[in-house]
Amino acid sequence: MEDIYCFGGNPLDRASERRDNREWIASLLADPETRILALRDLKPFSRGKATPARRADAPVQRADAPVLDWQPVAQWRDHIDTGAQLIFLGLGDGRAHFAIDATGAKVAPDVDTELIDVRGLAPAIATGEAAILAEARSLLDWHARHRFCAQCGSPTNVASAGWVRRCPDCKASHFPRTDPVVIMLAIHGDRGLLGRNRRRAGARFSCLAGFVEPGETLEEAVRREVREESGVRCGRVRYLAAQPWPFPSSLMIGFLAEALTEEITVDPEELAEARWFSRDEIREMVARAAAGSDDPALPSLPAPIAIAHHICRRWSSGLDSV
Amino acid sequence: MEDIYCFGGNPLDRASERRDNREWIASLLADPETRILALRDLKPFSRGKATPARRADAPVQRADAPVLDWQPVAQWRDHIDTGAQLIFLGLGDGRAHFAIDATGAKVAPDVDTELIDVRGLAPAIATGEAAILAEARSLLDWHARHRFCAQCGSPTNVASAGWVRRCPDCKASHFPRTDPVVIMLAIHGDRGLLGRNRRRAGARFSCLAGFVEPGETLEEAVRREVREESGVRCGRVRYLAAQPWPFPSSLMIGFLAEALTEEITVDPEELAEARWFSRDEIREMVARAAAGSDDPALPSLPAPIAIAHHICRRWSSGLDSV
Repeated sequence: MEDIYCFGGNPLDRASERRDNREWIASLLADPETRILALRDLKPFSRGKATPARRADAPVQRADAPVLDWQPVAQWRDHIDTGAQLIFLGLGDGRAHFAIDATGAKVAPDVDTELIDVRGLAPAIATGEAAILAEARSLLDWHARHRFCAQCGSPTNVASAGWVRRCPDCKASHFPRTDPVVIMLAIHGDRGLLGRNRRRAGARFSCLAGFVEPGETLEEAVRREVREESGVRCGRVRYLAAQPWPFPSSLMIGFLAEALTEEITVDPEELAEARWFSRDEIREMVARAAAGSDDPALPSLPAPIAIAHHICRRWSSGLDSV
Repeated sequence: MEDIYCFGGNPLDRASERRDNREWIASLLADPETRILALRDLKPFSRGKATPARRADAPVQRADAPVLDWQPVAQWRDHIDTGAQLIFLGLGDGRAHFAIDATGAKVAPDVDTELIDVRGLAPAIATGEAAILAEARSLLDWHARHRFCAQCGSPTNVASAGWVRRCPDCKASHFPRTDPVVIMLAIHGDRGLLGRNRRRAGARFSCLAGFVEPGETLEEAVRREVREESGVRCGRVRYLAAQPWPFPSSLMIGFLAEALTEEITVDPEELAEARWFSRDEIREMVARAAAGSDDPALPSLPAPIAIAHHICRRWSSGLDSV
């Protein structure tokens, strides 16, 4: 089976064909076994002390490993009754799981509960829990930013256990977005092309990436993005793996691409710099990122939370070739 | 290089990094070489007589092959000046290409111009033109259905040469949707799993398919959709190819999946029937669909316009295995 990176490996059965069944959803909410994950300002309630990470995208320390603070549905009954945004996440371990938006909720959180940003928390919790968290965060964020009908401007109503918004006026149905992003390592001989973001300080490099647009294939999007950002032309493109990225609702789709040209002409709107790195250099950058070391004098790569890390790891260690 | 199916192979340079440059876009619109593709009710202006197809998704007849009716920008000047929706499609053959929404336009179309639905026209025109048409159709449809801010309900303004809508009140930016759809042939030994849609008459079978949801990888979406629609459990999943599908803005991502179970339990909301077909049966269905024959007594597959056709063709002819 394929490798699973952070935010993949969701263990829940989404039972999407039953979301429209209001009686069934109501029965789940009446079941004392049902569990609720509350998020406030898109940060989940979690338990266990987390110390600050050494760098922004490193996992929180595991000394007292945090876990998601799943709570019995009874604890959130009053808040549910106020009409708080509720999402049916799926079935697992013989019971139903929901997410609830607790932003502004009067319910006092457990004294143990900590609010940690998803980006810091996800690498420190179990794979499956991080994937559920991605589902919950993307959906709640989508609701928060899509309360009105894009077609006619009217306020919309939630339907399908949180998976649809419907317009009472023009009858349009609106579904959560999933925005495909291509992310790729262009390869020329024994070197890989990495870019340094204009909006990011330091010597942090990463794979080039960009949103897929209407009217292009994934492979065309890979070639377009590499050319636009770096001036490098690519030929063959090979799919590697995908990763949900809930900031807010991207689907990262990872590739290797065969570079046909070497000369770099950076798009200054996108990148401060793009550079060819040798396989050995990339392998060392991967090792440093995996260890959480962050020497500002050395070029660095994203931590293992990001698929860019794994694309670089797999290619530089010889697991994948274009 | 990868195979290109209908709506792939867009030859234009989208120059996406220059869309925000208003002076540049204005200079393109002042250039007499610039070409305009007009669409009315999402149907492009085209030239050349097309006779009705024998079946709904078959290409229009090629006796007098149609072409897109690209027109000089001067012909649409007045309509542009009324503020008609305009999209910068990209650069090609040394000039700029735009799409314009001519729904309700007072400009009289050429006498030769025919309005043909994109689904019927696309297989009859050149590959690159069909891909440009996909880009134009998806974008114009997105504008038509997204005139208001989903975050606050205010009317939004077009920016970035048709690639962004911005809210003057809450300042949110909205981008065109590209909705990833997984489409797959589940394989068990020498048989493939096809479904017959509840909403479609006759014996038309196709690959199973469904939208990717937030918080799942592509492979997880493949396994979930096959299980939900047919009850069959899948293991390994192999990516084959992608295809833009502008009805309205899907990105079809095609896979083979290794079926681990055989028993079929159909979701009656989605499918009327799912059935295992032998490799020989699928090869014959592909041949009939490619020839445009449509004997209602025999099970049929989609025409070559659809990636489902090619997934079945490639697997049944031994080009791909899971």
